Amino acid sequence: MTATPLSLSPSTSPILQEIVRQIRAADPYGTYRTWADELLLKPFVVSKAQKRQIAVEGEVDPIVRGRILTYYRAIAALIEKETGLLAQVVLDLNGEGFGWVLIFSGRLLLLVNTLRDAHRFGFDSLETLTEKATALIEKGIQLAQTYPEVGRL
Amino acid sequence: MTATPLSLSPSTSPILQEIVRQIRAADPYGTYRTWADELLLKPFVVSKAQKRQIAVEGEVDPIVRGRILTYYRAIAALIEKETGLLAQVVLDLNGEGFGWVLIFSGRLLLLVNTLRDAHRFGFDSLETLTEKATALIEKGIQLAQTYPEVGRL
Repeated sequence: MTATPLSLSPSTSPILQEIVRQIRAADPYGTYRTWADELLLKPFVVSKAQKRQIAVEGEVDPIVRGRILTYYRAIAALIEKETGLLAQVVLDLNGEGFGWVLIFSGRLLLLVNTLRDAHRFGFDSLETLTEKATALIEKGIQLAQTYPEVGRL
Repeated sequence: MTATPLSLSPSTSPILQEIVRQIRAADPYGTYRTWADELLLKPFVVSKAQKRQIAVEGEVDPIVRGRILTYYRAIAALIEKETGLLAQVVLDLNGEGFGWVLIFSGRLLLLVNTLRDAHRFGFDSLETLTEKATALIEKGIQLAQTYPEVGRL
């Protein structure tokens, strides 16, 4: 039994809060209504050992694809909140789990990430997720503030 | 029999030349070596009547997806040629033929198009293709020249 580290509470991390909000907003049948936030966040934590067991062949599982989108949409939402820009997420994944994810506003790219082995998307811990997302959000906000004109085109 | 208008010669249109070049460059088995340029360009012309006969349900045919990419990669190549920037094409199509295509360099979006009914991708004529592509290329070049710093980030 490997205990997945879940020590970080959603209540202390804006990105975790936003991921939970995104999941609950896209839950037309109320499936997750009774789920604790921690349970909704659990699939975002994938240990190295777990990753090794996930095959990287063929199309990325639509559920994993949706999880990747949720993560980046949460990042986009937090950049929006801070800058007032409308931020759009675009995900281009090929059949082998390689691709691009972009967040843009106007003509400005607030985030550019390449993805590989997207089948294995996940973080060591919610702390790592929060740390990485926070760095991406800060970079996006900084770009939006440096080039406001391009972001509003 | 409906004759598809193919009066424009590739030799007079840089975008048609570039599309042909892209197709021939991605032809590892030499399948198209003996094909005339006109024949390679023919699938880019889809009349309104032909479009009506193409179902827009389900995933976009990989061949049509490839054709969309070729068109936008040719546009990106011509923007690159003029500006010296490296331009990347990202295509995000959902299972219903809706999506985004972006061309970017650095942090600058040189092109942002939404796609719908991508299954029916094609132009009335090669003239229309050339006209539309030329407008997109000019807009991209203009953006690159207005925000050179963002394009080189």
